[in-house]
Amino acid sequence: MRFDEAYSGNVFIKSHPSYEESKAVIYGMPMDWTVSFRPGSRFGPARIREVSLGLEEYSPYLDKHLEEVKYFDAGDIPLPFGNPQRSLDLIEEYVGQLLDAGKFPVGLGGEHLCTWPVFKAIHKKYPDFAVIHIDAHADLREEYEGEPLSHSTPIRKVCGLIGPENVYSFGIRSGMREEFQYAKESGMYMAKFDVAAPLKEVLPKLAGRNVYVTIDIDVLDPAHAPGTGTAEAGGISSKELLEAITMIANSDINVVGADIVEVAPAYDPSEQTQIAASKFLREILLGWVK
Amino acid sequence: MRFDEAYSGNVFIKSHPSYEESKAVIYGMPMDWTVSFRPGSRFGPARIREVSLGLEEYSPYLDKHLEEVKYFDAGDIPLPFGNPQRSLDLIEEYVGQLLDAGKFPVGLGGEHLCTWPVFKAIHKKYPDFAVIHIDAHADLREEYEGEPLSHSTPIRKVCGLIGPENVYSFGIRSGMREEFQYAKESGMYMAKFDVAAPLKEVLPKLAGRNVYVTIDIDVLDPAHAPGTGTAEAGGISSKELLEAITMIANSDINVVGADIVEVAPAYDPSEQTQIAASKFLREILLGWVK
Amino acid sequence: MRFDEAYSGNVFIKSHPSYEESKAVIYGMPMDWTVSFRPGSRFGPARIREVSLGLEEYSPYLDKHLEEVKYFDAGDIPLPFGNPQRSLDLIEEYVGQLLDAGKFPVGLGGEHLCTWPVFKAIHKKYPDFAVIHIDAHADLREEYEGEPLSHSTPIRKVCGLIGPENVYSFGIRSGMREEFQYAKESGMYMAKFDVAAPLKEVLPKLAGRNVYVTIDIDVLDPAHAPGTGTAEAGGISSKELLEAITMIANSDINVVGADIVEVAPAYDPSEQTQIAASKFLREILLGWVK
Amino acid sequence: MRFDEAYSGNVFIKSHPSYEESKAVIYGMPMDWTVSFRPGSRFGPARIREVSLGLEEYSPYLDKHLEEVKYFDAGDIPLPFGNPQRSLDLIEEYVGQLLDAGKFPVGLGGEHLCTWPVFKAIHKKYPDFAVIHIDAHADLREEYEGEPLSHSTPIRKVCGLIGPENVYSFGIRSGMREEFQYAKESGMYMAKFDVAAPLKEVLPKLAGRNVYVTIDIDVLDPAHAPGTGTAEAGGISSKELLEAITMIANSDINVVGADIVEVAPAYDPSEQTQIAASKFLREILLGWVK
Amino acid sequence: MRFDEAYSGNVFIKSHPSYEESKAVIYGMPMDWTVSFRPGSRFGPARIREVSLGLEEYSPYLDKHLEEVKYFDAGDIPLPFGNPQRSLDLIEEYVGQLLDAGKFPVGLGGEHLCTWPVFKAIHKKYPDFAVIHIDAHADLREEYEGEPLSHSTPIRKVCGLIGPENVYSFGIRSGMREEFQYAKESGMYMAKFDVAAPLKEVLPKLAGRNVYVTIDIDVLDPAHAPGTGTAEAGGISSKELLEAITMIANSDINVVGADIVEVAPAYDPSEQTQIAASKFLREILLGWVK
Amino acid sequence: MRFDEAYSGNVFIKSHPSYEESKAVIYGMPMDWTVSFRPGSRFGPARIREVSLGLEEYSPYLDKHLEEVKYFDAGDIPLPFGNPQRSLDLIEEYVGQLLDAGKFPVGLGGEHLCTWPVFKAIHKKYPDFAVIHIDAHADLREEYEGEPLSHSTPIRKVCGLIGPENVYSFGIRSGMREEFQYAKESGMYMAKFDVAAPLKEVLPKLAGRNVYVTIDIDVLDPAHAPGTGTAEAGGISSKELLEAITMIANSDINVVGADIVEVAPAYDPSEQTQIAASKFLREILLGWVK
Repeated sequence: MRFDEAYSGNVFIKSHPSYEESKAVIYGMPMDWTVSFRPGSRFGPARIREVSLGLEEYSPYLDKHLEEVKYFDAGDIPLPFGNPQRSLDLIEEYVGQLLDAGKFPVGLGGEHLCTWPVFKAIHKKYPDFAVIHIDAHADLREEYEGEPLSHSTPIRKVCGLIGPENVYSFGIRSGMREEFQYAKESGMYMAKFDVAAPLKEVLPKLAGRNVYVTIDIDVLDPAHAPGTGTAEAGGISSKELLEAITMIANSDINVVGADIVEVAPAYDPSEQTQIAASKFLREILLGWVK
Repeated sequence: MRFDEAYSGNVFIKSHPSYEESKAVIYGMPMDWTVSFRPGSRFGPARIREVSLGLEEYSPYLDKHLEEVKYFDAGDIPLPFGNPQRSLDLIEEYVGQLLDAGKFPVGLGGEHLCTWPVFKAIHKKYPDFAVIHIDAHADLREEYEGEPLSHSTPIRKVCGLIGPENVYSFGIRSGMREEFQYAKESGMYMAKFDVAAPLKEVLPKLAGRNVYVTIDIDVLDPAHAPGTGTAEAGGISSKELLEAITMIANSDINVVGADIVEVAPAYDPSEQTQIAASKFLREILLGWVK
Repeated sequence: MRFDEAYSGNVFIKSHPSYEESKAVIYGMPMDWTVSFRPGSRFGPARIREVSLGLEEYSPYLDKHLEEVKYFDAGDIPLPFGNPQRSLDLIEEYVGQLLDAGKFPVGLGGEHLCTWPVFKAIHKKYPDFAVIHIDAHADLREEYEGEPLSHSTPIRKVCGLIGPENVYSFGIRSGMREEFQYAKESGMYMAKFDVAAPLKEVLPKLAGRNVYVTIDIDVLDPAHAPGTGTAEAGGISSKELLEAITMIANSDINVVGADIVEVAPAYDPSEQTQIAASKFLREILLGWVK
Repeated sequence: MRFDEAYSGNVFIKSHPSYEESKAVIYGMPMDWTVSFRPGSRFGPARIREVSLGLEEYSPYLDKHLEEVKYFDAGDIPLPFGNPQRSLDLIEEYVGQLLDAGKFPVGLGGEHLCTWPVFKAIHKKYPDFAVIHIDAHADLREEYEGEPLSHSTPIRKVCGLIGPENVYSFGIRSGMREEFQYAKESGMYMAKFDVAAPLKEVLPKLAGRNVYVTIDIDVLDPAHAPGTGTAEAGGISSKELLEAITMIANSDINVVGADIVEVAPAYDPSEQTQIAASKFLREILLGWVK
Repeated sequence: MRFDEAYSGNVFIKSHPSYEESKAVIYGMPMDWTVSFRPGSRFGPARIREVSLGLEEYSPYLDKHLEEVKYFDAGDIPLPFGNPQRSLDLIEEYVGQLLDAGKFPVGLGGEHLCTWPVFKAIHKKYPDFAVIHIDAHADLREEYEGEPLSHSTPIRKVCGLIGPENVYSFGIRSGMREEFQYAKESGMYMAKFDVAAPLKEVLPKLAGRNVYVTIDIDVLDPAHAPGTGTAEAGGISSKELLEAITMIANSDINVVGADIVEVAPAYDPSEQTQIAASKFLREILLGWVK
Repeated sequence: MRFDEAYSGNVFIKSHPSYEESKAVIYGMPMDWTVSFRPGSRFGPARIREVSLGLEEYSPYLDKHLEEVKYFDAGDIPLPFGNPQRSLDLIEEYVGQLLDAGKFPVGLGGEHLCTWPVFKAIHKKYPDFAVIHIDAHADLREEYEGEPLSHSTPIRKVCGLIGPENVYSFGIRSGMREEFQYAKESGMYMAKFDVAAPLKEVLPKLAGRNVYVTIDIDVLDPAHAPGTGTAEAGGISSKELLEAITMIANSDINVVGADIVEVAPAYDPSEQTQIAASKFLREILLGWVK
């Protein structure tokens, strides 16, 4: 007596009813407690699902249909308000279970710090993995206002975990001087301002490797993604990000998990941020889950 | 592997997982195709559920807790876009099934025309039922711009079905001259402008009767419910509507079903309309489902 | 080949096509150049007309229909941007022409200073007229930041023109100490905070007199009229203002002109301010134009 | 006694007062009843006119001034709410009259289904006409949720009417697999994702032909046109669309009519969508009406 | 070379330049890290100051002018993002310094948990103080989701600190059953739903006592204060709260400090919430600081 | 006892406390009284400062940190509301003082007319200066609606002051035919539509000269800057404007002052316009003040 068709607004469109049979699992990380400027990304996952109702199930970019891939939408992980450490532990535990069960994890943020426990879980299963990081911000701080748990630190942390030489950042246009210095000196890869062109050069080098891809929606210009906490002028267009996603789909890397973070709907009355994120999610499911 | 707690934002809080065991059933009627001025109420049901996350489960008005009543949230009835007649048929069929199964139907609109098929389903089970209609608009037109299926007609239609003497309207402050004339001459009851005071007088007369209650959110002043299609200045406050709901709960009438309609979230960036509707829904579940 | 019915959104609903045959004339005063805090009322008149499409033509308050009164909507007076003195001269000239032609002027603001030239035009025809002023602000300043032409001065100016003893202010809850002192000492009438109750007492004293009524929409609480430049908490409800308008309609005073000013749509995404003003305008046309 | 200058906000700027003397006629099609996701385009035509006040009358793109072309703004066609078939019949009838009178029709939507009756009227006068279709969506469905009258179907319908080989679509980035297959197999022309570059190649092939051009505003990226019902990330910029309009103006095709549809102001508090559409309309009048 | 007059938008209007000479000190507590539903109150203090520019300096309620009281606006206490415990410690330390210096503390929130350290600081100076708590929510939880530091707990904590018999809550309309039971059984005072009427009865009993007054803006109906995190329908009007503030000013209690909390501007595009809070702040400064 | 760190939201981040020691001075010109279409830019300067809190202090574009340049934020010049002439006189006087003291003036508008008195003050000190003007609008009118003081005239005025051959306009896409004719015939330089490419060609010709740079935020496409009074579709991206600012920084011209004008926050609920302007201001301080 529940209406499965209409109900799909509450899960991402076409998500499969069975966890067991699904290859990928979508989960929300509704946390924004360490956000410094404009909070609100905790509502990102729910709104990305809601607007998926307006999305076509077929992608003309990849010539694929959502029926060709089985994914389960698990909803949002219940996270304790205002407690970053416990929230991160719960995310790590959950993603660990997904990986143990052979699932492809697709996270929806939430603030970027949420990716840190995911990195740890991925590391347990794929100790040699590399990271593709698409973002406006370097996120290479060691701490923020004295707090090591901050949405400005996850990429620095993962450099410590897997070595900076395995971390590839794209689109970076904001950070402290120290972060850019670290990027230069540590051996990590950082492409400033652009995404598609440098990615085209990097992808062949990563061929055959296990790669986790994390996308901070604020890599887009605020024109294309006003609904985010730390909007940064001078970004790329949705078109360029779609191009990048397609490039990864057509490359020889082995994507082992992905996320889209920092969608904060309150700052975008037109809903275009979640509408765009919802489309990116479709492309990720169609192109990266193999 | 789904997160039941966090997931509650997609169903009304504390809704019971089992249809069979539930006494009441919440269902959405996401239809606004005959709306003349500002459409958008099709998104009302989903947003009422979403904000229920911010609601307490206990009512200090009724001294009751949502755990004391079992209700199932069925989601939204899948309605064919732009086809009023088929949509109404589907609603009538669905509510008929609920009544056959002994459930108490609680509808969320959607436009007010959605109540018309519910009236017809109720009539089959309770041929002698009366209607309490709380609204800014008389909704007594025979047709609107030549269309008999319009959100301005449901109360006129139910007058035809059960006799105007069984229809009680409250809070009415807008309509055509013909509608007010019909109200005067037909034998129906109509209280202009106010709700709580006239309801206090009417309720004893309805003691022991089966009554369906339909609440158009625009009975509230636009100050209290800006998110509605045909906002009408000069309305009552949320406080008065809560008082009215409590009065009905404490009366001797037998409520056999209810709905809250015309919540159109797009016109209310503060979300207060759905937040209020969500609270009214809690009170209805606690006070009217017996 | 123009569509008269649909076109009515650009004039107030049911406005008569002929200036000559009309008794009343609606005109906009799209000026906000002396506004100190939040400009934007220049768009008030157009939006009041636009939302009139959603209004019923019949009033259950007065039991009258817009077809019973002939009024012409002249559109907005073309005013030179940023030039207060020339704008005021143009308004005075236009309203003078209306009065010469025996029309009942109904102005839509625009900032409250626009009423000053109207007062002057009215004074030429009705030297003994009185003013009913419904507003949150005393508007009794002699100047504002050194400028005698300011939206804070029109009532002080009209006190000079017709004598303070002929000025009746209602609902006042904001002003400088000097303004309240002037109100006390000058012999004018001022009711603080409330409108309906004091008006009920004053109206009999004004019986038989020619009265111009000016309504600043900010007399309403910001809950009821968020779309205004200098919103002031603690105001009256739409319901109380409708009651006041009805009282005046049913009184023995001779209303010779009226206006509604300070509607600034940009601050009200829900459009409830213009929706309310549009309803007040209907009641004024039905109740005051005789 | 009406103010012609100020009044221009209610018609498109500089529109000519005489239907008879005008070469082109602007008309609104305020219909959105078959819209599946976010309704509201019925208010598009009025808001495009309103913001035209802020537009210059001269185009530096075409080096032409609006005084060089005579066009009449007829207002919105009065359409019966919620009745798609009758609405479409009225549009067909009206546009037929325009064509009989030798006028160049310029429609403002409203949903894209409105273009279907226009196609039929054009077909009667120009049986051999071709279509340039600029849109994010293929609009090639045979039906939508069982309804053949849907905003997803007009291009498929016109393929049936004039043959797919006479239909040229640009900018398409969304649709069902079946629609893209139809595009490939039917012989119609479809350029995915881009507009200006493929148009440059196609225009010479259409030289000398009668062409109707329909522009769905959602071909723009949501960054440039957030105010539309089915916003689709990854679109073109306003700059590219202006370039396309200029190219058509400078080509050798004979434009016989045009429209801009799917502007839904409620989703765009910044009003940039209607501001852009208003500019496109100016360019169309200056460049395509000959 | 700084512009003192124009600069006043960044401090509350008419605030005195000298901390030493001032009797009262305004300080912001820009913290919202434990907020469960809709964060954003960290921006409350800044926006309350910003809109104070539109406020009159004279109060017709109290017949007093802001020049009659000396207060210093210290700005916002710099609080470490996402660290509740350290934030609370900093607030307690700062307010302790104010009290040591003989200042009257006036806090602006930020979430309601911020009042807890203020209570502790007050307690050190006035061990026998009582609390007047004006709020929609009981805030009597012992913990929230396992966290004892939550915006739902400050009143329970102060009951522990000074004894429930010294705590007086008004306007409460939301909470868990346990909170209302605690209110009944513990000996504290709680007035449900209303503020002015019960306060009138309680004030004489508190005559001569030292009292701290904490106002959660959500005691207002969402119609009057949409800009708050946990809006709760059925509240009081701005008018009633102004009445309550005036009553306290005219009573025989000795107010020793006060705050206004939970203003979250992001949810209120009309800015009416901060406009109202700004007015309440003026009345508090004029009426309570003696 | 003031909190310097948190207080920085009210001045541009990292602004120096001492006017005397600073090289550059930021000042606001909160005037919009001659704006024809959508006023509100008077709030631009305050909001640009407010969002600077979310900005990094380091620029990866210029590899410089805000600590490397000393600038003082003077706040907003107090301007008399609605009095253009006196406002302009005050601006001219203030900027004259800055130049006398050897400061680099950085103005924040306010409407573009504010740049006219700045031009006059610059002219006194640098009689041979040139102007780089980046804007959507030519601003070359001699008067607007009969008023020579209008936001459409400043560039025409400066042509009269320093000779059109010293004026270089970029990005222009709107104006009257007369303005474009004047541009062609007068000997001034005008690049239509684009900024970065033509600037690259012009900069070498200006090597060694004193240049004032005025940026109207509406040169950006409304997608990138919706918060402006006369948004004009078809503009450049934030990325292109950042590129232009960097080019100027790396050129051989001697920038002697600059401004960013026409930010009107009310039209941009996402705040992206002021966020972008705030970033441009950082780049100007880092790259142009030498």
